[in-house]
Amino acid sequence: MPIVLFTDFGAGDLYVGQMKAALGERAPKVALLDALHQAPNFEVAPAAHLLAALAPRYPAGSVFVAVIDPGVGGERDAIVLEANGLVFVGPDNGLLSVLWQRATRRRGRRIVWRPEHLSDSFHGRDLFVPVAAALASKRLPRGWFAPMKAPEILLDADDLAEIVYVDHYGNAMTGLRAQAIARATRVRVAGRSLKYARTFSDAGAGKPFWYENSLGLVEIAANRASAAQQLSLHVGTPVVLSPG
Amino acid sequence: MPIVLFTDFGAGDLYVGQMKAALGERAPKVALLDALHQAPNFEVAPAAHLLAALAPRYPAGSVFVAVIDPGVGGERDAIVLEANGLVFVGPDNGLLSVLWQRATRRRGRRIVWRPEHLSDSFHGRDLFVPVAAALASKRLPRGWFAPMKAPEILLDADDLAEIVYVDHYGNAMTGLRAQAIARATRVRVAGRSLKYARTFSDAGAGKPFWYENSLGLVEIAANRASAAQQLSLHVGTPVVLSPG
Amino acid sequence: MPIVLFTDFGAGDLYVGQMKAALGERAPKVALLDALHQAPNFEVAPAAHLLAALAPRYPAGSVFVAVIDPGVGGERDAIVLEANGLVFVGPDNGLLSVLWQRATRRRGRRIVWRPEHLSDSFHGRDLFVPVAAALASKRLPRGWFAPMKAPEILLDADDLAEIVYVDHYGNAMTGLRAQAIARATRVRVAGRSLKYARTFSDAGAGKPFWYENSLGLVEIAANRASAAQQLSLHVGTPVVLSPG
Repeated sequence: MPIVLFTDFGAGDLYVGQMKAALGERAPKVALLDALHQAPNFEVAPAAHLLAALAPRYPAGSVFVAVIDPGVGGERDAIVLEANGLVFVGPDNGLLSVLWQRATRRRGRRIVWRPEHLSDSFHGRDLFVPVAAALASKRLPRGWFAPMKAPEILLDADDLAEIVYVDHYGNAMTGLRAQAIARATRVRVAGRSLKYARTFSDAGAGKPFWYENSLGLVEIAANRASAAQQLSLHVGTPVVLSPG
Repeated sequence: MPIVLFTDFGAGDLYVGQMKAALGERAPKVALLDALHQAPNFEVAPAAHLLAALAPRYPAGSVFVAVIDPGVGGERDAIVLEANGLVFVGPDNGLLSVLWQRATRRRGRRIVWRPEHLSDSFHGRDLFVPVAAALASKRLPRGWFAPMKAPEILLDADDLAEIVYVDHYGNAMTGLRAQAIARATRVRVAGRSLKYARTFSDAGAGKPFWYENSLGLVEIAANRASAAQQLSLHVGTPVVLSPG
Repeated sequence: MPIVLFTDFGAGDLYVGQMKAALGERAPKVALLDALHQAPNFEVAPAAHLLAALAPRYPAGSVFVAVIDPGVGGERDAIVLEANGLVFVGPDNGLLSVLWQRATRRRGRRIVWRPEHLSDSFHGRDLFVPVAAALASKRLPRGWFAPMKAPEILLDADDLAEIVYVDHYGNAMTGLRAQAIARATRVRVAGRSLKYARTFSDAGAGKPFWYENSLGLVEIAANRASAAQQLSLHVGTPVVLSPG
């Protein structure tokens, strides 16, 4: 089963390579996958909703290292969660709390082990990676974990009526799960009221619309154009659903 | 033989990771290579010329998943091409048609199989990846393909006298193959007439020139500077050859 | 032991994929790691200091392909260095000279072999990759190397009192090693005098400070904000240490 990385460390920066070097030394036979390294910097709540939608697209048994961690080096705890057959390693700052609360099968543990050399600013490399490598290799040293009922920081796990991610096309994902939303519903955002379209080629060129994206979320998009630019959307922009 | 990805899905976005997760599940022993994920968004013709120059740099037998696909979810077909010993999976929208027309050995098939769960916006993950994994693993399920004489959409396969790609240095590749072009030729672009130089260090610092790049294409560059910025070049900017 | 790539070729561009294809053909069992592909374009001196700090974070025996090479295709030599148990392949333009001069165990060789097809602009793919693959596979063809006492270009190997790298958060690394610097020291940069903080969460939100980063370098940062934007820092900006 793979180790999957979900961070705000930057796809082009020098942090992910150091994590992969450490993973390669400790779990050389485990496949590594990059889910996302451009989660919006420091933004825990939107990332928590995005991760809850994205994680089930990865294979059962995957071990996620999830790090959006502005409080690194401070008081926040480090935790391991099992949720619906997936495993998550990361900070106890709310990032893992949305998927935790939505899970029907779950189990949590606090990480009480600390490595000999622990950078104050890079627990991804020094703490979370060794734990993930041990979990993925099924080698669980005694004394690394303590039982836990639930994470300390629990964000609201209801759908989040905000933009949670803007991709490089300018498509803007919300924290709203689309399955339960009638197709006649309008999405009001940035002073506009947008209609549903099934997919890009069903919409007029350049015209913004909403649709159910490939993660099952309501997404604001435009055919061959950047909806984010047209409507000045960014992470945190509120959206409102109104009956059609 | 590897599976090679060529898309406009973004190097830092969350789409490529989902494709690789699906490939890892279906073809765990096949090596995955990223040729490019920052092909200009939605721009099929320049990408078709870039891919025709780039693909032969990959090993014989490589299976390419090539997706620049603004019409995803609409009427366009899905195809598999074998061309000069390489295999290509992608949409029938012209993207694969330049390399097809230039190939001396070739064979085409339509993909008639559809997966049980097919996102309307992400055929890369749901349709092209399973087909590529089957091809790379030499497991070809019966009934997935139908014979085809040629792709439906055939772009002009002659050299394209435009900028087809701008790299992060600001070097601007054209769709012109350099081998047949005399070194005395001038390249006229953006109101300037540029001379040939063999390589960067042969040109004066900051001065724009043209040269044969490592893919065999005519490229506009500048020594230790951004030619694209200096000359306002972008994908689609026309170039004209004039005898020296 | 892995092959580690350190270049200014761009994380999203089409050069790294070609290098990895060539490595996969020549050394299919060797793991590949991306240390950095967004070293500042053409900037040899800052990259030399960054590489000297970053390389020891990779496993003993790693073979680095290090290419920031504005003089490619010109007169500069190609070299292989062994330094403190790591191996480096790259141009003799100063890039490898800082780590070389700081190493206690070292050995250098010139690369006299040239491939049949050598692009004038992409020695990374055509020259350095075959050499690295041979070194990593312990297959060293006769006649590829000539003995060498030291690289021809030797940059100053003392700490560099400048910004050498700005990451995507806006944190700005200097070429100053932090271990020997008293925590009471102030760092003067861009007209400001910055105090030490242990880590981000110890500093007030948005306030710039200096700290010892995870590579052991003095870094200018701000809590949940971009220090580079606040202070207009870029690669080359000078910094001055003053007693607290």
